[in-house]
Formats: sequence, structure tokens, C-alpha cells
Amino acid sequence: MREPRDDDSRTRFLAACRKQPYRGTVPAWVMRQAGRYLPEYQALRKGRSFLETVRDPALAAEITCQPLRRFDMDAAVVFSDILIPPAAMGISVEFVEGHGPRLNPQVRDARSIAALSDFDPETDTAFLAETLGRVRQEIGPNKALIGFCGAPFTTASYLIEGGSSRNFEHSKAMIYGDPTLFAALCERLVDNLIPYVKMQVAAGADVIQVFDSWGGALDARTWREAVLPATARLVRATQETGVPVILYVNGASHLLEVMADSGADVLGIDHRVPPAEAIARVGGRVALQGNLDPCVLFAPQAVARAAAGVLEAFAPQEGYIFNLGTGILPKTPIESMEILFETLRSRAESPA
Amino acid sequence: MREPRDDDSRTRFLAACRKQPYRGTVPAWVMRQAGRYLPEYQALRKGRSFLETVRDPALAAEITCQPLRRFDMDAAVVFSDILIPPAAMGISVEFVEGHGPRLNPQVRDARSIAALSDFDPETDTAFLAETLGRVRQEIGPNKALIGFCGAPFTTASYLIEGGSSRNFEHSKAMIYGDPTLFAALCERLVDNLIPYVKMQVAAGADVIQVFDSWGGALDARTWREAVLPATARLVRATQETGVPVILYVNGASHLLEVMADSGADVLGIDHRVPPAEAIARVGGRVALQGNLDPCVLFAPQAVARAAAGVLEAFAPQEGYIFNLGTGILPKTPIESMEILFETLRSRAESPA
Repeated sequence: MREPRDDDSRTRFLAACRKQPYRGTVPAWVMRQAGRYLPEYQALRKGRSFLETVRDPALAAEITCQPLRRFDMDAAVVFSDILIPPAAMGISVEFVEGHGPRLNPQVRDARSIAALSDFDPETDTAFLAETLGRVRQEIGPNKALIGFCGAPFTTASYLIEGGSSRNFEHSKAMIYGDPTLFAALCERLVDNLIPYVKMQVAAGADVIQVFDSWGGALDARTWREAVLPATARLVRATQETGVPVILYVNGASHLLEVMADSGADVLGIDHRVPPAEAIARVGGRVALQGNLDPCVLFAPQAVARAAAGVLEAFAPQEGYIFNLGTGILPKTPIESMEILFETLRSRAESPA
Repeated sequence: MREPRDDDSRTRFLAACRKQPYRGTVPAWVMRQAGRYLPEYQALRKGRSFLETVRDPALAAEITCQPLRRFDMDAAVVFSDILIPPAAMGISVEFVEGHGPRLNPQVRDARSIAALSDFDPETDTAFLAETLGRVRQEIGPNKALIGFCGAPFTTASYLIEGGSSRNFEHSKAMIYGDPTLFAALCERLVDNLIPYVKMQVAAGADVIQVFDSWGGALDARTWREAVLPATARLVRATQETGVPVILYVNGASHLLEVMADSGADVLGIDHRVPPAEAIARVGGRVALQGNLDPCVLFAPQAVARAAAGVLEAFAPQEGYIFNLGTGILPKTPIESMEILFETLRSRAESPA
């Protein structure tokens, strides 16, 4: 379908990140595309723990590449986890089936922050560099390869809460009650996340997505005061390596402006932000990524129309990457993903 | 502290709902004030199931009144649950400790909607009328008494998902894939919710809060198309009894305008909506209720300043009721609630 003179996936992806023109269809990938909804992933995971799989470069590379063999995606996103840095800093991380991650000890005071160890990504997370290298080997130079790490608030909240949380009361108690301590924790994390991200770029990542998965729990003023300084430092340091940064915050319709103030090249937005509103509020400053509701994929008959609607709504935006608004859900019908990528390839036209 | 000529709690509460002037402090209550953070509630619940407690008028009335004995609140909110109507419609509802409610059967097709039974609130939920009567007996005529029910989307989502949900994929699959079926379910629910709400008003409720706890998962267009018609019908029918309606949607910074279009008298908003923004966007059309982050209460040293900040930010709003942005959390320190109500009583001045 694509004409021979179209730019390749990687070129289009990086051009979109930088709001530059390119030839060909809108670059597209899907958050959490490597994993849980694919039968070949389920087969590979059988009898293996999640972290065991992440830390095995052969398995992690295989999982990263699986979706690209099925669907015409422009980017691979490395199969990893935002809890890899906390684990490397000496926190015990366990994934309890059906309960999410459990972290020990909880980090709620100056002593436990001081007790964190700094890690050397070249040795302590060498498996990730090897995974990225193996993925590049398979996907070649013409697909984009996305590395990632957790944003300061999301990473800190796992440490403070000791796992996932519905309300983040302990994280916010620290933010509201002892903002200096919270800032110290964030800075300590960013001290470690910067070399971790640089290692990923050195190993072949073309772009880094910073996940502030839980940042939407904060109001804009709190995000600005408590979270923006450390987040902006991480973004800047990543950009110094020459790669663009996508900042993703789930449930962030109230945070677009302060997210853009982080200096990120691209903002990932969820389905609750109308594209026209995102374009009007921050589209001049940043590229945008999103935002099909992943739940649409549970109604296969609705996928083509909904995806075309998202493409159309984002057409006026200079610098746009198609994605879901949040990660693809377990039990998503494969059929829907097939319809989605057929729609993207037949309908999406470059704005260039 | 209050001068003798101040209006009583009920008068101030109802005046605020209607954007009318009153004398005295800003009316205040706390979502989920009756319950889980109070030791006297924990003691009373020991060895009793949640639904058993809700259905026992003596116990439910006692729980409703407990917080008003401790704190200078302007309103009691009846101890009940938004799953009472589904249970009365023939769905089995069980509360599994630590897992939330489980509903059977799941309602995902026309046959299971047809299999729902209509209920007569005068007989099938007579316990609630008796609870309201007992509460009025204790609190007297000068406090406001709040009844409530679930909004169409939130109630429907419990039926469709079979319980709580993180992503609402089955509810949204119906909305996106078969909107007519979803509308039929909502209308069937509202057919039953209207007499249920009228029964509460007849039994003494001064105001009804409609909880769309999960409505924030929808984007504004979907909320407007799929949820607004049934929600507006429930609101209008409630108002015909002469009482005002508070519509509460959690995580609704992207929904304020469409919520106001429901015709509700008051919108309840969470901590993610800056008060000045809420006032600018919908404050001329509706009264506002909110929006202190309940997590502030986990930092007692921050409570007085944060509460004063909320009062100050809402001072320009004609028609304002103080509340948390979401329900008070289990394990909230009582000390923080004491500081909160001291602050409200010493600082809050009526705009009249």
C-alpha cells in the first residue's frame, strides 16, 4: 500500500516526535503491545515469573518482537518494567499474581531514602542492554525502538506505597506534609534514572518514553511543585543524548500544560482528552501521541470507525503518533488489533 | 462561634444548593463520613456483613449519626449503598472482604436486561425509609439529610462488569458496540431509580446526591451520548419532588460542562479541578461542592492550611458546599477531621 518513496518507520516516528515533515502513513504503536493479550506471549510465560522473563534477554527480545510479526507497527517497545530501577536500588520487588507488585521495604522517611543503593546500569541492568541489542538485530535499522523508564512520581509512589495504590495516600502525605523529603526521594531516583536511560540509548533505543502512569492523581499545582523539577531534569538529561522524549501521564486532561512545561518532545494522552482540545492547549509546543480508548478493541465492529475518527481528529496536529490512550488490556481480541492496523495503514496519510 | 441570627445548617445547605444567600458559615459535610475511619463504626460492624448493616434501620441510623456527634457537620448522609437497587432488582450482591462487591449474574445482553425485576421501594427497600426516619428523629429539623443513589453509568457498570472494574471494558464494549442496548439498560435502571429516590424524599431526605463514581472513565462525547439522557431524566424526576440534586462524578475535570447539562443543581468535583477553573467553566450555571484531596488528611500538619485554601479559592462562587474531592479514606486520622472542622468553623464565612 505504501509507495516506495515513503520514509521508513523509524524516520517517520522520529520526524513526528520532532514535529518535522515526512512521507508516508502516521507512525503507530500500542502501549503494552508486547505481552499479555498475545497467545504466543502467554505460552512463553508459562511457568516463568514476570521478572525472570524481563531479565532474560533472549525471552525479553522475543516478547518485544512478537507483536511486530503480527501487525504492521512502526516501533518496538522493549519488554521491561518500570520497577527494574527500584529493584536495582536494593528494594525487593515481587509480582503477586492478581495483586500487582509488592515492594519491600517501604520508603517513607529520610533513613530509608539514605538506605537506597545507587546502581550501575552497565552491570546491574546489563540484561536490558543485551535485550535492546537483540531486538535491533531482529527489527533492523528501519523500525523505531522505544526504551522507557518510570517518571519520578510514579516510581516514588511504588516505593512509598510498597506497591500499586488506589489513592496514593502515603505518597501524598509525604508531598503535602514533608515536601522537602519527597523532593529528596525524587532527586535520588532521577540520579539513578538518568544513567539508566542513557544506557538504553547507548544500547540502541531511538526514543525514550517516560511513564508517569499515576501522575494523574495529582492536581496541576501539586504536579508542578512536587514533580515537575525532577521530571524536567530527567527529560533534559535524556534529550542530551540526542533522542526525543515522550512523556505519558494517564488521566491527565487537567495536566497538559504542566506536562508540556517538562520540556518533553511528545505528550502521550489518554482517551479522555479530546484531540482538538489537546491540539489547542499544547499542540503548538509539543508533538502528541494517543488516544484511542483501549476498550474500543472489545467491540471489534466499532474499531475501524473509532480509529479513523482518532486519525481525523489529530490530522491538524503537526507531530502526531497514533497510539491507544492507555495500555492494551489483557483479553483484547486479536481480531480487533488486526482491524486496527489495517485501518491505520489504509486511512492514515502523512500531513506532510 | 456562630452568631444567634445565623441560619441553621439545613437552611444554609439548601440555600447553597440553590445559589441563594444565607447567614453563617459555608455548609460542610464529607463524602463517606458515616463509616470506615471511625472506631465506633468498626466496633458496630464487627461480625456483621456490610449489607446486613445497611438493611438494619437501627444500625444504619446509628452509623449515619455517628460522625455528627464528633464533628460540627451540616448534613447527615444516610448509610446505604448504590448497590441496593441492583439487589432489589434480583441481582445477587455480595461484598467480598478486600475484593469489593461481586454481582451475579452479569448483565450483558437483552435477555439479562429483560430478566431484571422492577422493584417497589415502599416494600422492597422499606428499611431505607425507616433509617431516614430514625436519622431525622435524632438530628432534628435543622440539619440537612442527604439521600443518594447511583447514576445510570455507575450502576450499569456494576451490573455489566459483575463488580468493580479498573477499565470498564465490558461496559464500554456495550457502549461502543451496541449503544442501543446500553441505553435500554440505563433507562430500565432509571425507571427503578426514580421511585427509589422519591421514596427517600418522602421519608425525609432534603437533597439527593447522584453518584457517578466511575463516569470519569468516559470521554465527554461518550458521556453526553451514552449517559446524559438517562442521567438528566433521573435528575429532573428527582427535582420534581422539590429537592435539589447534587451530581458527583469522580475524576471529571474533562466532564464539567456535560455534567452541568444534566440539569443538576450542584456539581461535586474532585481535587483535580482547580476551583477557579470550575467556577469559570460552570459556576454560573450550577452550585459547586468539593474539593479537598482526602489524602491531605493523612498529613495532619497540612490540613488547616489546605482547607483554608479551598475555602478561599471557592469564595467567589455563588452556591458552594465544602466537601472532600472523593470519599474519606479508611485509616484517616480522626485528629485531621477535628482540625478540618475547627478550620471550617473558624474560617468559613458566608458570601451573603
